[in-house]
Amino acid sequence: MDTAYKAECAKKASTVCAQLGEELKNNALSRIADALKADAQKIFDANKKDLDAAEGLPAPIKKRLVFNQSKLDGCLDGIAQLISLPDPNGRVLMQTLLDDGLLLKKVSCPIGVIGVVFEARPDALIQISTLCIKSGNCCLLKGGSETKHTNKALFEVISGAIADAGIPEGAMQLLESRDDVKEMLALNKSIDLIIPRGSNAFVQYIIKNTSIPVLGHADGICHVYVDKYADPDMAVSVVNDSKTQYVSVCNAAETLLIHKDAASKILPMIADKLRQSSVTIYGCERTREIIDAEPATEQDWKSEYLDYKISVRVVDSLDEAIEHINKYGSGHTDAIITSDADSAEKFLNSVDSANVYVNCSTRFADGFRYGFGAEVGISTNKIHARGPVGLDGLMIYKYKLYGSGQIVADYAEGRSQFKHTKLD
Amino acid sequence: MDTAYKAECAKKASTVCAQLGEELKNNALSRIADALKADAQKIFDANKKDLDAAEGLPAPIKKRLVFNQSKLDGCLDGIAQLISLPDPNGRVLMQTLLDDGLLLKKVSCPIGVIGVVFEARPDALIQISTLCIKSGNCCLLKGGSETKHTNKALFEVISGAIADAGIPEGAMQLLESRDDVKEMLALNKSIDLIIPRGSNAFVQYIIKNTSIPVLGHADGICHVYVDKYADPDMAVSVVNDSKTQYVSVCNAAETLLIHKDAASKILPMIADKLRQSSVTIYGCERTREIIDAEPATEQDWKSEYLDYKISVRVVDSLDEAIEHINKYGSGHTDAIITSDADSAEKFLNSVDSANVYVNCSTRFADGFRYGFGAEVGISTNKIHARGPVGLDGLMIYKYKLYGSGQIVADYAEGRSQFKHTKLD
Repeated sequence: MDTAYKAECAKKASTVCAQLGEELKNNALSRIADALKADAQKIFDANKKDLDAAEGLPAPIKKRLVFNQSKLDGCLDGIAQLISLPDPNGRVLMQTLLDDGLLLKKVSCPIGVIGVVFEARPDALIQISTLCIKSGNCCLLKGGSETKHTNKALFEVISGAIADAGIPEGAMQLLESRDDVKEMLALNKSIDLIIPRGSNAFVQYIIKNTSIPVLGHADGICHVYVDKYADPDMAVSVVNDSKTQYVSVCNAAETLLIHKDAASKILPMIADKLRQSSVTIYGCERTREIIDAEPATEQDWKSEYLDYKISVRVVDSLDEAIEHINKYGSGHTDAIITSDADSAEKFLNSVDSANVYVNCSTRFADGFRYGFGAEVGISTNKIHARGPVGLDGLMIYKYKLYGSGQIVADYAEGRSQFKHTKLD
Repeated sequence: MDTAYKAECAKKASTVCAQLGEELKNNALSRIADALKADAQKIFDANKKDLDAAEGLPAPIKKRLVFNQSKLDGCLDGIAQLISLPDPNGRVLMQTLLDDGLLLKKVSCPIGVIGVVFEARPDALIQISTLCIKSGNCCLLKGGSETKHTNKALFEVISGAIADAGIPEGAMQLLESRDDVKEMLALNKSIDLIIPRGSNAFVQYIIKNTSIPVLGHADGICHVYVDKYADPDMAVSVVNDSKTQYVSVCNAAETLLIHKDAASKILPMIADKLRQSSVTIYGCERTREIIDAEPATEQDWKSEYLDYKISVRVVDSLDEAIEHINKYGSGHTDAIITSDADSAEKFLNSVDSANVYVNCSTRFADGFRYGFGAEVGISTNKIHARGPVGLDGLMIYKYKLYGSGQIVADYAEGRSQFKHTKLD
């Protein structure tokens, strides 16, 4: 089956999926959970094939390929959370009585057909497909080829379970090759949205090669700014977590900014802590007057290391920190450490990023941690969904207008007047 | 001043604009209204130059170029409505206590810098700029060259008024040439959103030549479906208004679909009415068995006539009507005429368009008629804003997370648990 045909089938199914009731969709999710449990061994066996083939790869990558009982348990928790969330479809977002007998409703509805290209991480397939089902969307899924056996096994288990539950055939499709992805980018008649996950270069490639709207982020250059009113121990702990808790992810911090009045005391403490995790520090000149560090270049401020490396810059003011972040950041996640509420609020309002934090780690930017059950990705888009994208980010709305024969000529020619009474 | 520099200035101003208070913004809008009244004659004089230059153009186009007292009054009404609307910025859209002392807020904020390219219609400049001011956005404006003198006069009056009110310099910029627009399409670092208004070909050109998100619609192929349970007089009146009230606009109907059981009675009535306005009818074979009509070809179902022309097709069922609309429509505005509530609801839920109507004219798809005060355009996008785009469509949100030193390691390693308490 070629990609265009698969997309066509998904498009056809999308009209039906948009009207599925909450009970049917939750039942489908329960069946997926049951089937994943029942067929766990089959999936683990498929995963073993992928892991055997990945023998030569670096350990951190191999770790992401694993699908074991603990990963499965995490997914089952996510599915349970999704089932407990209210149906995002058909919510009345606005209601205005335009005139007597002329009622306007803005009602949420699914986006339609979503093409998701994700990295080799089997749990992503489960998260994405269950989010699509709950939101009434159809999807074309293409996972990293390093987990192709696991993806196939998971897809079979899930699509079997949803067919039994009454989700229309064609609602979920698996793509298996890179050529399929290329083909998908041209299908702007049947695909409504593309969500690419992966490297900066890959996401940029997708954006440049399709006229279909793209949701996601290319890179995550996240900052922690230690203000002059920062608590030193909190600064050390939050910077360390933001940098080292999981270095290869988009919400890990890449640059530390520190106020000049705080630098001489706090910077050595932070440096000590980071060196316990063998973090290499690239510092500006003023940083290097205080601690040992490699010299930072302009390129360092633009770098997403995804590694045990951090760039450090001493700034003269909160304003300079904000300016640095808005210039070099990627609009993903940025945090300020301060005990001053005004500085905090100024930072939150002025930094133009999807996630802006006070006194906590950048690593909190995540759909599960936000209570969304799961996420299809994190978006730095400035239109539509921004930040971790869960159910809400997979919805759009339509305006329904209920009339009783009204024509515009009556209003244009003054025989009728609009009332515009807000009903909620 | 080149376009890149103008965009850069707007970007810089956008951080300030995002934090302007409601009072300051409403005051700026009042000052615009006052200045438009005070300088009305200057603007009318500029408009006269444009009208003189447009001597040779067709009457309907010339009509759109006019900016007179009645157009000004309409704009002043719109500004008054905008002032009365609540500030769309800083609204708390969601609030979750992730854990004690760790509060997540989803807060609305402006998109940033918006490039708007609009047709030669002077009132559009006023609508767009005032919507941007109220929503805290900055904008680059390029209007049709047929009204360049009027645009310039309006821009001078408006930018003078907002400077007095404290809106930062650079927040509003006027582009004057086609080359400026071309240059704008490449400025993805400083422009967050492009809103093109104009012909299908123009909008397609913009979509294909920029990686900046585009909001809008390429064409408006709107349908009226007359169901078998339709009231005949209502059908005649609504079809006539949808087609003839203003033929050259995107929400005018282009295709009439009619149920086979209603056709023999209602079709002749509709045809009589439409012929009073000299509408040419292109009908399918079954249509031509009932009324005189030119033969319709496949191309007619795909045509946005924007003229006194309509295509007519007899269908066997509601399902066939829905299928036709989802295949040939442009996702803009489609209406059903029926007295059967189930058929109505099925139509509303199954037709994948921004505006779906029961028993009223497609011409109601408009920001002013919806009570939005004004609109920057109508969007058929399936992500972000859809339908008439007013203040809400010019907003996005950011996630603010207020912590007290929380790090992810504590949650990842089981020392802390999320509470995810929804606060509203």
